[in-house]
Amino acid sequence: MTKLVYEDFQPGREFPLGPKHMTAAEIIEFASEFDPQPMHLDEEAGRASILGGLAASGWHTSAVFMRMMCDSYLLATDAQGAPGIDFMEWKKPVLAGDTLSGRSIVVEARAMRSRAGIGIVTFRHEVENQRGELVCLSQNATMIRMRAGAEVSA
Amino acid sequence: MTKLVYEDFQPGREFPLGPKHMTAAEIIEFASEFDPQPMHLDEEAGRASILGGLAASGWHTSAVFMRMMCDSYLLATDAQGAPGIDFMEWKKPVLAGDTLSGRSIVVEARAMRSRAGIGIVTFRHEVENQRGELVCLSQNATMIRMRAGAEVSA
Repeated sequence: MTKLVYEDFQPGREFPLGPKHMTAAEIIEFASEFDPQPMHLDEEAGRASILGGLAASGWHTSAVFMRMMCDSYLLATDAQGAPGIDFMEWKKPVLAGDTLSGRSIVVEARAMRSRAGIGIVTFRHEVENQRGELVCLSQNATMIRMRAGAEVSA
Repeated sequence: MTKLVYEDFQPGREFPLGPKHMTAAEIIEFASEFDPQPMHLDEEAGRASILGGLAASGWHTSAVFMRMMCDSYLLATDAQGAPGIDFMEWKKPVLAGDTLSGRSIVVEARAMRSRAGIGIVTFRHEVENQRGELVCLSQNATMIRMRAGAEVSA
C-alpha cells in the first residue's frame, strides 16, 4: 500500500476527524486512571462544577483526538512522530453523550534542515461537538517522510 | 480537610511528581485505544523507529503526568479546571521500563479579572526519566479558588 508522504500535505488541505461518541463509562474509565477529579468521575459532582455535567478530562478529549487523527490519515502516512504540541485549548466542556468530530488543516509544510528526506507539516486541529461548537483547538508539527528520491534534490 | 488555595501557590514553589513506572503492558494498552501507531504497540517496530524501542505515546506520557499532578497536589487543591496547555514538548522517547518523576513549579500567580475569588496559577512542568533526562516539558495555567473572603479585598 502506498502511504501518504510529505508531498501530499499541501497547505490548506483538510482531513476530517471523527465522529466519536463519548460515553459516561469511557469518561469515568479514563478519569479513574489518569485524572480522578470529581467532575470527571461523577455526574452530580460534574453538575456542581463550572463544567455543568459529567465532563471528560481535557486529556481524554486530547487522546480521543489523537485516535481520530490516526484513523483519518496518520496510520496511512509515513509519519515519523511529533515533537510536541504548540498549544491546546479546551474551549468548552465535553460532556457524556457528546459526539466529537472535526478536521486537521495543513497550515505549513517545509523541509527539515537537520534530517534529509523528512518534512515538517504543521497542522491546526479543530474538534467540535454535535452542535458545531469548538471544544478543542490545537496546533502541532509532525515529521513526515518525503517521497523516495525527493531528498536527492532537496 | 482544608484544601490548598490560590494563596498557597507562590511563584517559585515546587511540587514533586511521581515516581511512575511505565510498563510495556500499559504502553500497549493506551496505544491500542488512543494511538495505534506501530512504535507504540510493538517492541520490534519501536526498535526499527527513531524512538529506539517500544515507546509510550506522547499522549500517554501526558496522561500519566496529569495523574502525577492529581496525586501530588491537584486533588488537595480547590482547583477549578484548566483552559488548556500553553505548550507541551516530548523531548525524548519514554520507553517500556522507564520510571518517570519530576516537578511542577509555580511561575506566575494572578487574580482572574473576569471571576471574583479565582486566581490563575501558571506552572512549568518537568518530567524526567530514571537517568534525569527531561522527557516532557510543558506549561499551563490552572484556575484556583482564593481563600474564602479573599475576593472581598481583591
